[in-house]
Amino acid sequence: MRYRQIDVQGAAERIAPYVRRTPVLHSASLDRLAGATLHLKAENLQRTGSFKPRGAFNAMLQMAPDDLTRGVVSVSSGNHAQAVALAARELGSRAVIVVPEDANPVKIAAARDLGAEIVTGGVTQENRERFVRELMAERGLPLIHPFDDDRVIAGQATIGLELLEDVDQPDVLLVPIGGGGLLAGVSAAVRDRWTTTRIIAVEPSGADDFHRSRQEGSRVRLDKAPTTICDGVRSLEVGERNWSILQETVDDSVVIEDTAVLETMELIWTRLRTVVEPSGALATAALLSGAVRADTAVAILSGGNVDLNAWAAQSRTTRRT
Amino acid sequence: MRYRQIDVQGAAERIAPYVRRTPVLHSASLDRLAGATLHLKAENLQRTGSFKPRGAFNAMLQMAPDDLTRGVVSVSSGNHAQAVALAARELGSRAVIVVPEDANPVKIAAARDLGAEIVTGGVTQENRERFVRELMAERGLPLIHPFDDDRVIAGQATIGLELLEDVDQPDVLLVPIGGGGLLAGVSAAVRDRWTTTRIIAVEPSGADDFHRSRQEGSRVRLDKAPTTICDGVRSLEVGERNWSILQETVDDSVVIEDTAVLETMELIWTRLRTVVEPSGALATAALLSGAVRADTAVAILSGGNVDLNAWAAQSRTTRRT
Repeated sequence: MRYRQIDVQGAAERIAPYVRRTPVLHSASLDRLAGATLHLKAENLQRTGSFKPRGAFNAMLQMAPDDLTRGVVSVSSGNHAQAVALAARELGSRAVIVVPEDANPVKIAAARDLGAEIVTGGVTQENRERFVRELMAERGLPLIHPFDDDRVIAGQATIGLELLEDVDQPDVLLVPIGGGGLLAGVSAAVRDRWTTTRIIAVEPSGADDFHRSRQEGSRVRLDKAPTTICDGVRSLEVGERNWSILQETVDDSVVIEDTAVLETMELIWTRLRTVVEPSGALATAALLSGAVRADTAVAILSGGNVDLNAWAAQSRTTRRT
Repeated sequence: MRYRQIDVQGAAERIAPYVRRTPVLHSASLDRLAGATLHLKAENLQRTGSFKPRGAFNAMLQMAPDDLTRGVVSVSSGNHAQAVALAARELGSRAVIVVPEDANPVKIAAARDLGAEIVTGGVTQENRERFVRELMAERGLPLIHPFDDDRVIAGQATIGLELLEDVDQPDVLLVPIGGGGLLAGVSAAVRDRWTTTRIIAVEPSGADDFHRSRQEGSRVRLDKAPTTICDGVRSLEVGERNWSILQETVDDSVVIEDTAVLETMELIWTRLRTVVEPSGALATAALLSGAVRADTAVAILSGGNVDLNAWAAQSRTTRRT
């Protein structure tokens, strides 16, 4: 099985000095609303506010020292950009990051503050891969892909190792999916231990390529830019390496409307008093919206870099009055 | 000295089974903005989302069992209501709570969910004391005052004990003040150990009775209802017992504008990724707004029960565009 080749243990040892071991949060009041016992892995409290440093550090720590010093290129709508910028700063490297023009400005400002060079002019979800290839050729720098890289997948998988230590086997494990780095990693780490757990991919309806891929039995690529408030999962398709793992490890996928994501995000803010971004609320929304039913669930709060201006505007237009 | 009569150690032992030992949070990014090393005591993560259960449990655990069973009366704009409701439920009592009509609806709903009887019709900040006296006489029930009670002060003081264990003596200790229960308690607990620390009361400009009381040397009572988004500190005057302690323990007081509170609240949400209410951001705002300068500071995040609807509306009107 392909997923067993992911070196989770090696990644855990490699990145331990650089990342936080995040807590699993619980709220009796959310449990009542969900009708389930709900354990939430708080990667919003990870360094830079998302799980992404796990993968970025694990990839960059495996580069040859000379290559690392010259720098790396990456592409990100935000959270991976901050992670690569942080790893570059702490490992003596330089980061050049291609960012789509519709990216979350809060995330981009944070990556720039960490010292990354941001390339954004004319970049869209559709053409960004070409921009990256040109930049790599021009500068002679390697790519730290946001998800389609076994080193990155192994880094994100360390979340699964921590979950195995911190919670009992749940009925369902809910993980948000964009490119599939987080889900491929976490599912690879827990699949052989949580044998009866249903592992469920959670996607916003405006970026449902993985759900459709599972229905068709092969990778579907969206033919237009995703439309969703979940800016952390706006990829056009899952990665090739990710897809090969996900076919082995994932039991199901569900699609959630943005309105349900927004409601769940606000419930997590007010009941758990922890700040998650829309993508960070996505997995929990699967349970709170009723799309998934279970007695015990683990959901990953994947990030907490929220644009409050955008939220206040969004809240005005979509809020039930 | 009056403050040394507060039985902090007894309170700590009494309430330990019922309250959380809250963490002290830190953010490098907030430190940079503040130009100081800032330790934030996260009472927003206390049960019911504020420090209030410490005082409510400590008071009610000292009642005679028969009296406790008959029930208690209290008065609160929100957080103390939830605390008394929780203590009543867990200690086999009943809570009847008088609530001003302008109270935070989120907090009141939470108190009702915990089983409290809420009396609100016609109650204002100005006349609520009369309502309470009538209710006590009518039902024959004792009062659990939100702040003017040594048992309540001792309960809140347990925060100070935890701070003595968790942080080194800071240059300044910043505590929000409404009726003065939190500040009287915390300052009583730390005063003899943190001898060089400046203990500073932080008040919103729309409810500056303590600041004016210090200037005049005697308790000032506001002659109209406070106008501030900080709904946790909308008292007309500090308590008599509180005033007697605060005169001995407090070094200074500062007054903060609501706009600075709102900005700080949003910074805490986005940088620390923890949800505080306006009153919960008040103490930190003293440092971030520049009203207080220090190299090391401890501030208390007193609560996290925010009304998102009110915030979104507020944010629209006061936000710098």
